[in-house]
Amino acid sequence: MRHSWVLGANEPECDFPLANLPYGVFSTPGSAPRCGVAIGDSVVDLAALSDAGLLGAVAADCGFEQDTINAFMAQGRTVWDAIRADLTELLAKDGRAALRDNARLRETALLPLGSVSLHLPFRVGGYTDFFAGRQHAVNSGTILRGANNALTPNWPHMPIAYNGRASSVVVSGTPVRRPLGQFLVEGEEGPHFGPSRRLDIEVEFGVVVGKPTAHGDILSVAEAHDHIFGFVLLNDWSARDIQRWEGQPLGPFQSKASATTISPWVVPQAALAAFRVQSPERDVPLLPYLHEQADYCFDINIEAWLGTDSVEPARLVSTNTRHLYYSAPQLLAHHSISGCRMQVGDLLGSGTISGPERPQFGCMMEQSWGGRDPIQLDNGLERIFLEDGDSVRMTGWAQGEGYRIGFGVCDGQILPAHAWPKR
Amino acid sequence: MRHSWVLGANEPECDFPLANLPYGVFSTPGSAPRCGVAIGDSVVDLAALSDAGLLGAVAADCGFEQDTINAFMAQGRTVWDAIRADLTELLAKDGRAALRDNARLRETALLPLGSVSLHLPFRVGGYTDFFAGRQHAVNSGTILRGANNALTPNWPHMPIAYNGRASSVVVSGTPVRRPLGQFLVEGEEGPHFGPSRRLDIEVEFGVVVGKPTAHGDILSVAEAHDHIFGFVLLNDWSARDIQRWEGQPLGPFQSKASATTISPWVVPQAALAAFRVQSPERDVPLLPYLHEQADYCFDINIEAWLGTDSVEPARLVSTNTRHLYYSAPQLLAHHSISGCRMQVGDLLGSGTISGPERPQFGCMMEQSWGGRDPIQLDNGLERIFLEDGDSVRMTGWAQGEGYRIGFGVCDGQILPAHAWPKR
Repeated sequence: MRHSWVLGANEPECDFPLANLPYGVFSTPGSAPRCGVAIGDSVVDLAALSDAGLLGAVAADCGFEQDTINAFMAQGRTVWDAIRADLTELLAKDGRAALRDNARLRETALLPLGSVSLHLPFRVGGYTDFFAGRQHAVNSGTILRGANNALTPNWPHMPIAYNGRASSVVVSGTPVRRPLGQFLVEGEEGPHFGPSRRLDIEVEFGVVVGKPTAHGDILSVAEAHDHIFGFVLLNDWSARDIQRWEGQPLGPFQSKASATTISPWVVPQAALAAFRVQSPERDVPLLPYLHEQADYCFDINIEAWLGTDSVEPARLVSTNTRHLYYSAPQLLAHHSISGCRMQVGDLLGSGTISGPERPQFGCMMEQSWGGRDPIQLDNGLERIFLEDGDSVRMTGWAQGEGYRIGFGVCDGQILPAHAWPKR
Repeated sequence: MRHSWVLGANEPECDFPLANLPYGVFSTPGSAPRCGVAIGDSVVDLAALSDAGLLGAVAADCGFEQDTINAFMAQGRTVWDAIRADLTELLAKDGRAALRDNARLRETALLPLGSVSLHLPFRVGGYTDFFAGRQHAVNSGTILRGANNALTPNWPHMPIAYNGRASSVVVSGTPVRRPLGQFLVEGEEGPHFGPSRRLDIEVEFGVVVGKPTAHGDILSVAEAHDHIFGFVLLNDWSARDIQRWEGQPLGPFQSKASATTISPWVVPQAALAAFRVQSPERDVPLLPYLHEQADYCFDINIEAWLGTDSVEPARLVSTNTRHLYYSAPQLLAHHSISGCRMQVGDLLGSGTISGPERPQFGCMMEQSWGGRDPIQLDNGLERIFLEDGDSVRMTGWAQGEGYRIGFGVCDGQILPAHAWPKR
């Protein structure tokens, strides 16, 4: 385990040690957004490093001065690896001195994280939301259809998914307005129109595609693994009442369109290689096109905390990506099998990740068991679903020995719905 | 009715009279794709007209030299109207002489349609596929769930939809590869993996959004009308066997991801104003947010013809947009009501448009009544679903007195599926 000379990077609970080096987009007051890497308590300005000639010739094509990391991702794995190797050497205690010993460059290229604004790190191509957590599928199926029909027959055979709304993907910190929509209200005839009364979170893991496919191309699971650039935390805000009413026969639509919040840092696949774990046991054998040649699942803790402007957050969810039944390369292989064109910046959400126990359930619908059983938080708050003003903070990390690979925070606060009719 | 001096434009069956002026993107051998307008048998090079100073100062911001019309659409209705007025004057027999009488400019700016390649006219933001045709909803519901449960209870209250895959939208003429996927086969245990055996068309009308909304904004129906730039023909290729197996509980996904073909010409809303018709009678009163202040439905004929390399096409479908239950502004208003951010270039498919009689049913699943009753075409072909090598041509037009507002053709031919395992 190499150490970094950057402040904070070697603290055991720091999200951003030398072994992580996640990519994001940041700006400082009065300057344009550009690409950066988080390390310790700082962000490294990749455009500045590139300008200073510290990242090699390949950096010229990476577009680090742009406001997304898409151009960099589009360069492919060889360049990803080269830039990661360069950054590791520049930031390691025992590495190159070019940045460490250049005070003037450090001043422009190494900025305190607290002094920058973070932006959506990539331009989202398509956004697809899977349903790859078995416990979540069983829980939500049981709540909606009863224990005997909890899993649909297709579920053990393939990663079920729907296309989400890419334009609704926002970066951590963006307020989330409670949606208006149609839903049924007990005792009312016909659908009700108004602010959702059952606004929920969904604790998910997001997969970021870095290598595209052409229209009509298909990927094996092993190839799909090579197309994945990295991962983010993802909160898929969901209006359960709207979802319930609109969901048949074509699935979720406006119930999932208000916002999907992602963490500002994309953790590269390479940073998580040490945290791969065996795939779960299969209920039934998978079809050959979904076979894995290696362990592609991860051991990553993900938590969600809930507070308000006046109440400190308390933990609402504590789960782990190892509860996912399908791995990221399986999601992508299945996604491409129809010949669907995959793009740089495509975002695949895992679906809600629930562990076997109630505090591990990844959404409030499950924790309150369909709204029947209020959730009691350690901060004294009681909730069934989200209230206006509620703040939800997701965090996630893979735990190494004396260090962690973290994702930073994935935050959102609920604003009251718009008035209707419009004023 | 004003006439044009351009060859072919005044023929009664020409798709592109002076009253149409649809926008597209074209290229000539050795030149880069740029924006154009179809008139008669020709395409007008908008970049060349703009360079020649014939389109006024606003044209400088329209990006007509770019390979999509997105920059032009983003200028908003005032500019759309100004460019349309300029083009009308330049192309009318009784209008300005600046192009008509300038032989040198005509040679560079007015090209035979047969000499150009047509490209995807706009960069697709999101692609949403609605289910707005009542007869189609009733037919497919009856086939899948029986006559007593044909319409889901939500259907008469709002436009049902799912998010499609924007990356799969292709322009007319792009071959469509038969998808691989999972589906059930009678007599086999567990799902089968292989080429879809039930590949279908869906005859639809596509709405192109020209004016964006900010994240969290909502639109009334009247506002939504003002955000619509124009319309295209749309064929949403659908693998019915894959759809049937994957569709629960989250709706269609890979069954709709191989390709969605659109016509190369976007007919502006202004060109269709004369063809607006009353909305259909409502089964139940709509909620106020879906109320229409004007007639927003259209009388537009849409046909689909089926042939092969050796068999001349015969008519498979003959339908009309007046069979849609929800209008384009209603689709967009409902889409935005959750606060979903709408973008320039968002594409909203109407869903399959079926009239009351079998030849008016807009897909083969309906015409063959779930595959039970083969379709006999006038060219001697018999089909249940599409076979490899089949070509489908959609056409569409609004019929005026002695003229029509047409959409050009929307073509696709089926290629055999990829081999699996990959060679």
